[in-house]
Amino acid sequence: MIIIGEKLNGSIPSCAKAIAERNADYIRDLAKRQAEAGADFIDVCASINEGELEVLKWMIDLVQEVTDTPISIDSPNAKVLVEAMKLVKRPGLFNSVSGEGTKIEDAFPHLAGTDWHVMALLCDDTGIPKTAQKRIEVFEMIMKKADEYGIKHDHIHIDPLVEMLCTSENGIETVVEVMTYIKTHYPEVHISGAVSNISFNLPARRLINQAFAVLAMNAGMDSAVLDPLNQDLMGMIYATEALLGKDEMCIEYITKYREGIFGQKK
Amino acid sequence: MIIIGEKLNGSIPSCAKAIAERNADYIRDLAKRQAEAGADFIDVCASINEGELEVLKWMIDLVQEVTDTPISIDSPNAKVLVEAMKLVKRPGLFNSVSGEGTKIEDAFPHLAGTDWHVMALLCDDTGIPKTAQKRIEVFEMIMKKADEYGIKHDHIHIDPLVEMLCTSENGIETVVEVMTYIKTHYPEVHISGAVSNISFNLPARRLINQAFAVLAMNAGMDSAVLDPLNQDLMGMIYATEALLGKDEMCIEYITKYREGIFGQKK
Repeated sequence: MIIIGEKLNGSIPSCAKAIAERNADYIRDLAKRQAEAGADFIDVCASINEGELEVLKWMIDLVQEVTDTPISIDSPNAKVLVEAMKLVKRPGLFNSVSGEGTKIEDAFPHLAGTDWHVMALLCDDTGIPKTAQKRIEVFEMIMKKADEYGIKHDHIHIDPLVEMLCTSENGIETVVEVMTYIKTHYPEVHISGAVSNISFNLPARRLINQAFAVLAMNAGMDSAVLDPLNQDLMGMIYATEALLGKDEMCIEYITKYREGIFGQKK
Repeated sequence: MIIIGEKLNGSIPSCAKAIAERNADYIRDLAKRQAEAGADFIDVCASINEGELEVLKWMIDLVQEVTDTPISIDSPNAKVLVEAMKLVKRPGLFNSVSGEGTKIEDAFPHLAGTDWHVMALLCDDTGIPKTAQKRIEVFEMIMKKADEYGIKHDHIHIDPLVEMLCTSENGIETVVEVMTYIKTHYPEVHISGAVSNISFNLPARRLINQAFAVLAMNAGMDSAVLDPLNQDLMGMIYATEALLGKDEMCIEYITKYREGIFGQKK
């Protein structure tokens, strides 16, 4: 499971405050703790319109002061991300592209032939397709472009776009159908997504998020944007790996428990 | 989801102590709290060899003093259960039979034509079969007998026998295969089991149990022996129902949250 630590994001009020106040300790602390908790990438998202690249640079520099964990540079603006790529010491995750506008044409030439990973969202200029079939069409279009540029399949993370459960008519059936298609036809492509989106507007969100993570992993999800400091969620992920037969004799589960990644605080 | 409350069981040390001391308040309290937490059956297991029926009678009487929730009479001895059937005010769950010895012949004639439910374990005189195929053979034998006696399929709960994850080579693949077979071929038969068996000898057991419940429900489990006072586990079950598209607009999930079944204590 590839963990993309989500805590450094300007859309989170406490992080927005830290950015506004240029509170360097806040950024360094969360970068360090997420890395120690097992994040494979540290996501860095400014979530502002004016001066986005300057804020990203400030955040990236602070993260790189305290950890060697690769950075997920996160912006809806692919052109900003192409500039931000130059600010990091080592290849990270380009987060994100989608079928919208010229994002792919803006990004893929710069990713081709590098060790960068890329997150691709299955939406296009018409928005988020309602049906699994339409999302699969966006996915196939993205893969066609990726193959044209020679981007390796195991460097691609697909976010099938999990929507709010509270307004869904079929639970997570649509997104499971997309995940199953990807896993069957492109086994090397990573299936990803933001785990906590599922529970918007519902009470006891952590329980919905945890159950969703288990079901999504069962459907092939092997990458996720989440809070690695959430011990129960991390433990649930290692438990699920073992239950799905991917951790013989539970060696990894027991190791992570002993390292204090989960199960220690209660 | 059919919840069979597991707390009144002489194999649990505190309950064994309460039985030895004939502590009536302990029994009444746990019966009442499990019923209030949403148990569909209250399991009652003496877990002793000598005087089992007398202890069962004592426990059953106390449970019936405080709740109308049907009782799951629980013993490895089918003949004791046939006697215990006479002690309850209303039909409950006969827990359990299996392919071992004469259990089925001892039990089924007394269940035929009644409203009793029955739990059947997929083991026989050779023990717990290693392979899914062998367990399915035991299952088919039990169903043949059930049909001979005219026991309704939706009164049958099958425990496919979840084994310890820590010594498994393929995670829960075997048990999922059995569950999938049952669900496909006998859609009215309930798939059940003791959720916490999966996590023996592992740390942070609650995380393994919760993740297992989610995966088992995805494979068709719609009945379970568990602790209904475990709020996180109960919340996980309602969350999973919603994620699997069985709770439109999350009405049930939100209702149970508001009733305090989960999510309130933290």
